[in-house]
Amino acid sequence: MHIAFDADDTLWHNEPLFDLTQERVAELLADWVPAAELGEKLNSTERRNLRLFGYGAKGFTLALVETALEVTGAKVPGRVIQQILDAGKALIEHPVELLPGVRETIDRLAAEHPLLLITKGDLFHQESKIARSGLADRFAEIEIVSEKDEETYRRVLRRHEIDAERFVMVGNSVKSDILPVLAIGGNAVHVPYESTWELDKIDHRGAEEEGFFEAETMFEVPRVLDEIAALGWESA
Amino acid sequence: MHIAFDADDTLWHNEPLFDLTQERVAELLADWVPAAELGEKLNSTERRNLRLFGYGAKGFTLALVETALEVTGAKVPGRVIQQILDAGKALIEHPVELLPGVRETIDRLAAEHPLLLITKGDLFHQESKIARSGLADRFAEIEIVSEKDEETYRRVLRRHEIDAERFVMVGNSVKSDILPVLAIGGNAVHVPYESTWELDKIDHRGAEEEGFFEAETMFEVPRVLDEIAALGWESA
Repeated sequence: MHIAFDADDTLWHNEPLFDLTQERVAELLADWVPAAELGEKLNSTERRNLRLFGYGAKGFTLALVETALEVTGAKVPGRVIQQILDAGKALIEHPVELLPGVRETIDRLAAEHPLLLITKGDLFHQESKIARSGLADRFAEIEIVSEKDEETYRRVLRRHEIDAERFVMVGNSVKSDILPVLAIGGNAVHVPYESTWELDKIDHRGAEEEGFFEAETMFEVPRVLDEIAALGWESA
Repeated sequence: MHIAFDADDTLWHNEPLFDLTQERVAELLADWVPAAELGEKLNSTERRNLRLFGYGAKGFTLALVETALEVTGAKVPGRVIQQILDAGKALIEHPVELLPGVRETIDRLAAEHPLLLITKGDLFHQESKIARSGLADRFAEIEIVSEKDEETYRRVLRRHEIDAERFVMVGNSVKSDILPVLAIGGNAVHVPYESTWELDKIDHRGAEEEGFFEAETMFEVPRVLDEIAALGWESA
C-alpha cells in the first residue's frame, strides 16, 4: 500500500497566501486599476509566462511586476515595484500553517506505511516549506515536480517500483492530484480545500469513476484509506 | 560504475548567458551606475536573496529588478523594468548550446553505463534545458536539486543504491561538483569551464586528494574514467 500526499492546500495553507499577496498589490495599484481587473490581467500574464516560469512564488512575483507595468502603462513608481518585490518575499517566507488533522493523520499513517510527498512548484520554496512544516521525516520519499500529469505520475511510480493499482494519491486538486492518477489506473482521495487557484480549476465531471474517493478533511483520510483497502485492492 | 554529470557549464554553456544578461541590464542603467558597481550590487542582492530564492534565472531576474531600483534610488523608469524582465525571459528561453565533445562523450558513455544527471537550480528551467539539449534519453536518472552539498549527494546515492567509492561525478564547479563528492568518499572529474559564477568561486586547495581527477575538455573524460577504473576502484 503506497500512499502519497500533495502538499500545498492539502497539508498546509497556500492559495490564500497568494490571494493575500495579490490583494496587497491591488491596494498598491488601486489608483490605476480596480482589483478585479488586476486579477484578470494577472491571470493572463501568468498563463502567458507558464511555459517560461512554471509554477511557484518567484514566477508569481515576476508576473505581479509585469502586470503592474502593464496596467499603469509603465508609470508605476519604483517604490511600488519595490513593495511588490517585498510582498513576493513575504509570501515566500510566510510561516507554514498545517491544515486541521494533518499532523495526527500523517503521524498515524507514517507509522504504518512508507509515505510519499508529491508536490509541484518551485523546488527551493517547496523544500523550504517541507523543512519548516516539521513533517519532512514522516515521508520516506519526497518528489518535487514541475507538472503533475500522467507522465509525471508514471515516472514517479516507475522510479519507486510501485504498481498503479496499489497507489493512492491524496490531494485537494482535481486537476493535479486526482484525474491524472485515475487515468493511469491508480486510486485518488480528494480532500477539497476552501479555494482553488484559477489555473487549477477544472470541471469535476470525469472524476466519478473507479478509484475515486472523497474525504471532507484530513481527519477522515485514514478511514477512507481503510475503505479502499477493504474494497480488496490490497490483494490486487 | 556509476557516472554522474553536472549540466550547466559542463554539458552546455550557461554562465556567459547570465553575464550577457547582466551586461544588457548594465547598458540600460548606464546613466545611473557604472557596470562594475552594478555587478557588485547585484552580487550582494543575490547573496542576500539566496535563502529565499535559491539558484536560477527567475531569482536572478528578480535580483536584477531589485538592484536596478537600488542603484537608481527607485527612479528607474517602468519601461526599463520591463526591458529587464524581457532580458530575464530571453535568458530562460535562450537555445541550449552543447559544449565541445559533449554529444560524443555522452553517447559513448551512455552505451556502456547508466548515466546520472545531477544539476542544481530552478526545476522548471533545468527540465526545459534538459529537454531542449536533446540528451535527456541518454540519462537513466535525472536529479534536479536545490543545493549540491554532501547531504544532497548522500541522499541521491542512497536513493539509487550507489556506493560512494563506485561513484564518479563529472563537472565544472569545484565547490558543487568536486569537493562535496570527495568529502563523502566518491570520485570526481573536474572539467574546468571558461568562467565561474561569483557565488560558486572557491579556493581550489583541498581538492588535491584521493579521488580527484582532471580533464581539460569533455573529449578527455572517457580516458580519465578509464584511468580511474584502472586504479582498481571498479573492484573496490
